[in-house]
Amino acid sequence: MAVYTEVSFEDLEVFLAGYDLGAPLSFKGIAEGVENSNYYLQTERGSFILTLYEKRVHADDLPFFLGLLEHLAARGIACPLPVRSRAGAQSAHLNGRPAALLTFLNGLSLRRPETAHCAAAGAALAALHAAGRDFTIARPNALGIAGWSPLATQCAPRADTVQDGLAALIKTSLADLAARWPRDLPAGVIHADLFPDNVLFMNGAVSGLIDFYFACNDSYAYDLAVMLNAWCFEGDGAYNITKGKSLISAYRKQRDLSAAEIDALPALAAGAALRFLLTRLYDWLNHDPTALVRPKDPRDFAKRLRFHRTVRSASEYGL
Amino acid sequence: MAVYTEVSFEDLEVFLAGYDLGAPLSFKGIAEGVENSNYYLQTERGSFILTLYEKRVHADDLPFFLGLLEHLAARGIACPLPVRSRAGAQSAHLNGRPAALLTFLNGLSLRRPETAHCAAAGAALAALHAAGRDFTIARPNALGIAGWSPLATQCAPRADTVQDGLAALIKTSLADLAARWPRDLPAGVIHADLFPDNVLFMNGAVSGLIDFYFACNDSYAYDLAVMLNAWCFEGDGAYNITKGKSLISAYRKQRDLSAAEIDALPALAAGAALRFLLTRLYDWLNHDPTALVRPKDPRDFAKRLRFHRTVRSASEYGL
Repeated sequence: MAVYTEVSFEDLEVFLAGYDLGAPLSFKGIAEGVENSNYYLQTERGSFILTLYEKRVHADDLPFFLGLLEHLAARGIACPLPVRSRAGAQSAHLNGRPAALLTFLNGLSLRRPETAHCAAAGAALAALHAAGRDFTIARPNALGIAGWSPLATQCAPRADTVQDGLAALIKTSLADLAARWPRDLPAGVIHADLFPDNVLFMNGAVSGLIDFYFACNDSYAYDLAVMLNAWCFEGDGAYNITKGKSLISAYRKQRDLSAAEIDALPALAAGAALRFLLTRLYDWLNHDPTALVRPKDPRDFAKRLRFHRTVRSASEYGL
Repeated sequence: MAVYTEVSFEDLEVFLAGYDLGAPLSFKGIAEGVENSNYYLQTERGSFILTLYEKRVHADDLPFFLGLLEHLAARGIACPLPVRSRAGAQSAHLNGRPAALLTFLNGLSLRRPETAHCAAAGAALAALHAAGRDFTIARPNALGIAGWSPLATQCAPRADTVQDGLAALIKTSLADLAARWPRDLPAGVIHADLFPDNVLFMNGAVSGLIDFYFACNDSYAYDLAVMLNAWCFEGDGAYNITKGKSLISAYRKQRDLSAAEIDALPALAAGAALRFLLTRLYDWLNHDPTALVRPKDPRDFAKRLRFHRTVRSASEYGL
């Protein structure tokens, strides 16, 4: 939530000479994104986001991320579209960082989405899955089940300083999920982080999906399980079955779930809760106090994980 | 350079109900401003900055700051204009903070202004001084000469940890300036912080002056001295007399300097350097490492101060 790499007007001018966007009218650092530097840029041709990729996004992954956005936009998904340079490049270098210019989307993200918003977001996820089907580049899910153990090992010694019993919860959940993790579910490109922050609304309708920097190949139902965690819990940590039903039904109107996906949903939801618990816990424990980002409280996802571990069938989510 | 107070879309909706700006189209935290929280807001009626005033700006001063902007804008100065609520209020409260909506200005600030930019900025300062002449609210300069001693006292014990000899430089300069500080120069409303960050340019011309939160009543020539410090030194710390001449001449075309002002210029320039040295040093020494702002290096202004102390007459600035 900050600007890590400064870009002066003079740097910008040199950079923009490579693009066909006219003269700049406005340029402001914005407080957004997962450890990237983002600038809002207005030029004679429109509004854009200039992103400088910091440590969390690897330059090698940019052809996947930026190619995916081009692919999705061409299929009608409202997502940022990379602006190609005069030379046809999707990305460039600026002040020592890989950088890309993306179209700016109007709309606002919600802090407290209501039931109708959950339905709209569920439908948007199904449309995203359909549009990504024939995308040809693949990227494994670095934060899938294989990535959880190393994170857990690093967090274990200090986990209980954050909350009593957290280390045991993580250990038991990992073992349990390793035993019952579903394989061979329908899979393809997933967003993997479709939280309310990453869905823009206008007049109650979805106007854009953003922040695709965790996108990867994994099971579609896992993406839905991430959304159940992100959209359907109340501030007090209780699952709201009305929101869950609404999100899942809207998704199924476009892509129905197989029996195997439905059976797997409790495990997938627990796995998704564990993934966000682990990354937040890691960031919490390894937070550099001089960094410009405040880490998120991992305990919200410990609570979700405990809930999912009590769920016996997908009907408890509102199916 | 960060957002301190979060504003959700839901908070924004409630807030905007008090204004006649139509529906919001976009809303992003921006990395700008001196310890305020700033959001870029687009609505059906245009583009705005929503500012939540944090600890450095006192609510009692808002009628001065916001009234001044209205006053200046009405006299043709390109500055942000406070948007009044339906009830006619210039400011309101949002999430526990005083807040105001201001019009958004196009343009970009320069990191390395050239001679022509210095002239344009000098002319803009003269226009600002003229337009503020009949503004009726007054605000003393809290960071004028009377404010420097307390800051110096607080910084003195640790000043030399930042640079050898800094405590002595500050002590000598303070005593020296107390003895020769000019009184009774032409005075009125000054910006007091017109650094390149606070001047927007478009196609080489000034398109806006921003960040009036240090504005106050003080001598006009002091404002010019602040600009000599802020615009006319090179990256290596050397004074660029061509830029100085250009800035001062452009200013004098609109408001000529009296003999007393010209005589006072070396003292005023040293005082302005001391003011920024002291506030930066204070912030450097008292920086909270968990804060979202990185303090600026005070040593640049120690170097400027040392230069001004060698200046014998205003001709050395390019008059």
